[in-house]
Amino acid sequence: MSIQISKLDSSQVDFKKSLDALLAFEASTDEAIERAVAGILADVKARGDAAVLEYTNRFDRIPDGGAASMAAFDIGTAELQAALAAIPAAQRSALETAAQRIRAFHERQKQELQGFRYTEADGTVLGQVITPLDRVGIYVPGGKAAYPSSVLMNAIPAHVAGVQEIIMVVPTPDGVKNQMVLAAAAIAGVTRVITIGGAQAVGALAYGTETITPVDKIVGPGNAYVAAAKRRVFGIVGIDMIAGPSEILIICDGTTDPDWVAMDLFSQAEHDELAQSILLCPDADYIAKVEASINKLLPAMPRADVIRTSLTDRGALIKVADMAEACAIANAIAAEHLEISAEDPQRWADQIRHAGAMFLGRYSSESLGDYCCGPNHVLPTSRTARFSSPLGVYDFQKRSSLIHVSEVGAQALGKVAAELAYGEGLQAHARSAELRLK
Amino acid sequence: MSIQISKLDSSQVDFKKSLDALLAFEASTDEAIERAVAGILADVKARGDAAVLEYTNRFDRIPDGGAASMAAFDIGTAELQAALAAIPAAQRSALETAAQRIRAFHERQKQELQGFRYTEADGTVLGQVITPLDRVGIYVPGGKAAYPSSVLMNAIPAHVAGVQEIIMVVPTPDGVKNQMVLAAAAIAGVTRVITIGGAQAVGALAYGTETITPVDKIVGPGNAYVAAAKRRVFGIVGIDMIAGPSEILIICDGTTDPDWVAMDLFSQAEHDELAQSILLCPDADYIAKVEASINKLLPAMPRADVIRTSLTDRGALIKVADMAEACAIANAIAAEHLEISAEDPQRWADQIRHAGAMFLGRYSSESLGDYCCGPNHVLPTSRTARFSSPLGVYDFQKRSSLIHVSEVGAQALGKVAAELAYGEGLQAHARSAELRLK
Repeated sequence: MSIQISKLDSSQVDFKKSLDALLAFEASTDEAIERAVAGILADVKARGDAAVLEYTNRFDRIPDGGAASMAAFDIGTAELQAALAAIPAAQRSALETAAQRIRAFHERQKQELQGFRYTEADGTVLGQVITPLDRVGIYVPGGKAAYPSSVLMNAIPAHVAGVQEIIMVVPTPDGVKNQMVLAAAAIAGVTRVITIGGAQAVGALAYGTETITPVDKIVGPGNAYVAAAKRRVFGIVGIDMIAGPSEILIICDGTTDPDWVAMDLFSQAEHDELAQSILLCPDADYIAKVEASINKLLPAMPRADVIRTSLTDRGALIKVADMAEACAIANAIAAEHLEISAEDPQRWADQIRHAGAMFLGRYSSESLGDYCCGPNHVLPTSRTARFSSPLGVYDFQKRSSLIHVSEVGAQALGKVAAELAYGEGLQAHARSAELRLK
Repeated sequence: MSIQISKLDSSQVDFKKSLDALLAFEASTDEAIERAVAGILADVKARGDAAVLEYTNRFDRIPDGGAASMAAFDIGTAELQAALAAIPAAQRSALETAAQRIRAFHERQKQELQGFRYTEADGTVLGQVITPLDRVGIYVPGGKAAYPSSVLMNAIPAHVAGVQEIIMVVPTPDGVKNQMVLAAAAIAGVTRVITIGGAQAVGALAYGTETITPVDKIVGPGNAYVAAAKRRVFGIVGIDMIAGPSEILIICDGTTDPDWVAMDLFSQAEHDELAQSILLCPDADYIAKVEASINKLLPAMPRADVIRTSLTDRGALIKVADMAEACAIANAIAAEHLEISAEDPQRWADQIRHAGAMFLGRYSSESLGDYCCGPNHVLPTSRTARFSSPLGVYDFQKRSSLIHVSEVGAQALGKVAAELAYGEGLQAHARSAELRLK
């Protein structure tokens, strides 16, 4: 049975409406989850380790009647190194190559942001100082969705930023540890690994417990409980974006092997049923070829059911007037991943204002970027690329302003400040400036 | 009656506990406000302009039976320019000087963040592209808390970033417009001014209405309704930090005129009763002098009642062992504003890891920075300087990763990506990389 994927045409009168309907996605709030998470967080805040221990033993079904103390959840350096030694050589080599490339790219981000300082004619010095966060928590999901690549992508930017303590939490349902995840932690510069998860792990990182020092920021993906917990502790600690379903948008000029484009659409669709894969192309014949490739290649995919549902419910093949219109639509979509599979892709990339990551040319499949090109795979989803950025070193740094006014400078600035302060009715502000006048 | 301000000593056994109690501040969530805001936002989303018009007429008590249409709330360029021409020359000059200095500082921020691009040996190009947001909403409170300086501090970074549309909303209770605020908008590069406010204005900016194009980010301070509305629309649009009460921390070595230090403490305390002003000093005699200055200067302050309550409830004079300990405590507090009023202040600034803005030397009163030094006065409060930064040009820009893999590059990267993808059970990712292998 061939797949029923939406086909749109930008020349249709109702195209904008159809596109809006296709893109519409609102994360629902589950009140039961909200209440459960609020309770767990309050309990962890009040009872610390005892609460974390109980929830972990229960929710993760820790064997042998559960762990007796939090110490049982700490994975020492020796165990991480053992995991690295135990995984197949090809996997280890791939992880190390990926880590080295991710590190190299993120070092460039660090170089770009050095702060600045300048001195004005009257001796006043102004500037901006960049400092790393002290302590960061990395949340890594357990079970099937445990991705070693996510360990690298979340921990390496923190390590490059100069964060001194990188605490990784990863639940181990039924006590089962993922060796590739532990190996990735060994490579990525993680300081401490604790096998806890869920809202209780988020609470422990945010509030601290007897055995866990509170962190300054929590990053990394998680299920609905983890996302709800992160939202609730935001403000006490920093958090990264709460990610929505993953998306790929491919702009193709009709000259790439259609099998490649079909497989690139699959690579997003296989993540989950809500993932979104869209093709924009000015060539109707080529779109038909991609559709034929989809139907040809799908049966052999191990995750065919997920791919089929994702493409049927949320995918689309869209005929556009020309490549310029494709770029305009791409700007409206502001996709997480944007492939520009075309001759002279830079020409079209120059017209893109909003995208999490741009993959230029036929050889830049999104999957290369997901694992080992170097740029981060944690990217803004659900049109948030309009206002936010990939995860980066800058997420583990912050700026402080530096103001050193000279005695001469205080004379000129003091009069300006006093004038404005009186205008706003803030007399102590004005007097504070005036006291420095001769 | 002399003021009852807390006096702590770091050598006391319970000092850490006392300090924690002093700093404790948890913003309470008001369920009635949450429900009201949820209703207003849903109504604005459903009914657009009609809802915004009704709420504005009612909540802001627009005279003469209210405005007949949204057009009545638009303030044209001519009216902004008229406001600029109408305010006293000294005020206009002060606003223009402040704007020019704020612009100059923020231009440095823009220069620092230019993106990068590099080519690897096999021809693969990697990079990071910086682009401005398309449209931004600036919320400016109305009534007594209408601060023209905040208009400059919020709008100028957006303008410097290259944001094409900067829409300012400002409520006008009883229809009264603040001329100095309008003058500031004229100077700051605001594109459009709409006299609406509250949750209805936040909803209009986030969802868009018949007459208002939805923006990509909303920044600027507001009351509890505005803060609740911003939290709720976060994700649909970006928002800035939800600010807590303002804070100043002064480290003084005991050689600054105590009147200056007292007035600097006042300048924070006068904001509101919850504002926090703290002095750290190794010299007990000097602390006594500052206390005497406080009692001497307070009666003459127009906002003496607010200052008294703030200093009594949340202020403190803290005796420390030495300047190094003062810096360590300052790092734990991570203050919004940190004055280092001392000889060789840079020596101590080098020990500071966490602060929104550092004011070095005796002449750098916080009030100069609030108005006209150049750095932004929108700063992280409530210890969030541990993980966040002053408002800046970077808040109106975002990054996109750029990945252009060469044919040769795809051979090496494809094998690495496929190895890791198979390890994670994502076969379409692996196949997508492998299709590019020769």
